[in-house]
Amino acid sequence: MTQTHDTLSDFEAQFGDRLVLDEDAQDLLFREARTANTFSDEPVSDAQMRAVYDLVKWAPTSMNNQPLRVVLVRSDEARARLVEHMSGNNKAKTQAAPLVAILAADTAFHDELPRTFPHFPGARDLFAGDDAAREDTARLNAALQTAYFIIGIRAAGLAAGPMTGLDMASVDRDFFPDGEHRTIAVVNIGRPGEDAWKQRLPRLDYEDVFTTV
Amino acid sequence: MTQTHDTLSDFEAQFGDRLVLDEDAQDLLFREARTANTFSDEPVSDAQMRAVYDLVKWAPTSMNNQPLRVVLVRSDEARARLVEHMSGNNKAKTQAAPLVAILAADTAFHDELPRTFPHFPGARDLFAGDDAAREDTARLNAALQTAYFIIGIRAAGLAAGPMTGLDMASVDRDFFPDGEHRTIAVVNIGRPGEDAWKQRLPRLDYEDVFTTV
Repeated sequence: MTQTHDTLSDFEAQFGDRLVLDEDAQDLLFREARTANTFSDEPVSDAQMRAVYDLVKWAPTSMNNQPLRVVLVRSDEARARLVEHMSGNNKAKTQAAPLVAILAADTAFHDELPRTFPHFPGARDLFAGDDAAREDTARLNAALQTAYFIIGIRAAGLAAGPMTGLDMASVDRDFFPDGEHRTIAVVNIGRPGEDAWKQRLPRLDYEDVFTTV
Repeated sequence: MTQTHDTLSDFEAQFGDRLVLDEDAQDLLFREARTANTFSDEPVSDAQMRAVYDLVKWAPTSMNNQPLRVVLVRSDEARARLVEHMSGNNKAKTQAAPLVAILAADTAFHDELPRTFPHFPGARDLFAGDDAAREDTARLNAALQTAYFIIGIRAAGLAAGPMTGLDMASVDRDFFPDGEHRTIAVVNIGRPGEDAWKQRLPRLDYEDVFTTV
């Protein structure tokens, strides 16, 4: 069957705005998923975290540099230390969540490049002498991976409660004494509890965000 | 039916590592999706970009601040300007892609907070006097949104080619003369072409990334 230009335009007008991802997955990851403020008592297992990582590890980073490091805070002692660094209402949320993860950027990510970017042997040395470039690259790509991790938590049927209201420098000193890590966010993880969220907040319109040149 | 603790542990051992997201969606977004280096000639429509945004806009940012701004580079004139700012091989990729998007952080995001975070009227002023906090917050959250956008492009059945190998400051000056935007990445978008990708690069192991305290 020959398609005329008009037919293609009609097709576009009718279906051009449709996604390939199925509606259930859209809802699970984006439309019905919400930042949870309360959680049920159900624990979150290491197996679930492994499944999340085994999925989201495939998402892209610059030069495959993968700077994200994750600390799962499981002991009461470590939880108490972390709560001290959180701001305001985030203290109670962090105290109550079934699992809390500290997400940080490893500024020594370049030491892995011979393994993760093997076809460019000079990659490690490119970063070794430039602390500022390493810091910027680590922060940007760990932030990308933080977002992938949030989507992955939702893919496991769990709710994420990402927080940046905390004393990042204090968490760095307390949990990463090597001085090479920069905390990006703390994420509460679990099944949503009672009154887990308020009314959804407004999003910017397409026209506010996108321009064409 | 009563479940004993042992039964739950057996369940966990067998299924605790399974994701809720269906396998097709896992493949589409993560496992089979790849960073494309070549593209077909098929154009990418504004309707597709709207569909992507209407999905990924729901993903979380700090205080719902949504600093990401996207410039769709559609004119030959703007494309030629952008190509000049790209590094090495990224010039040819940027020249050839069906659609190229500049993703940037708007450091004036706080002007939208009265609309996007209305229950905290002091939110705008909290940032108005602190340029450094505004810059850091804008960069972190625009990076999260860059990752959501990459996932959204894949949800539309398209391939993304995100690039950070470019002169960010030059793109800022050229495309954002207001001085308030910071380029995060340039993303090529389209259907994958011939030899669109090389062999998949190795990912870090779970044990390299996760620790428990």
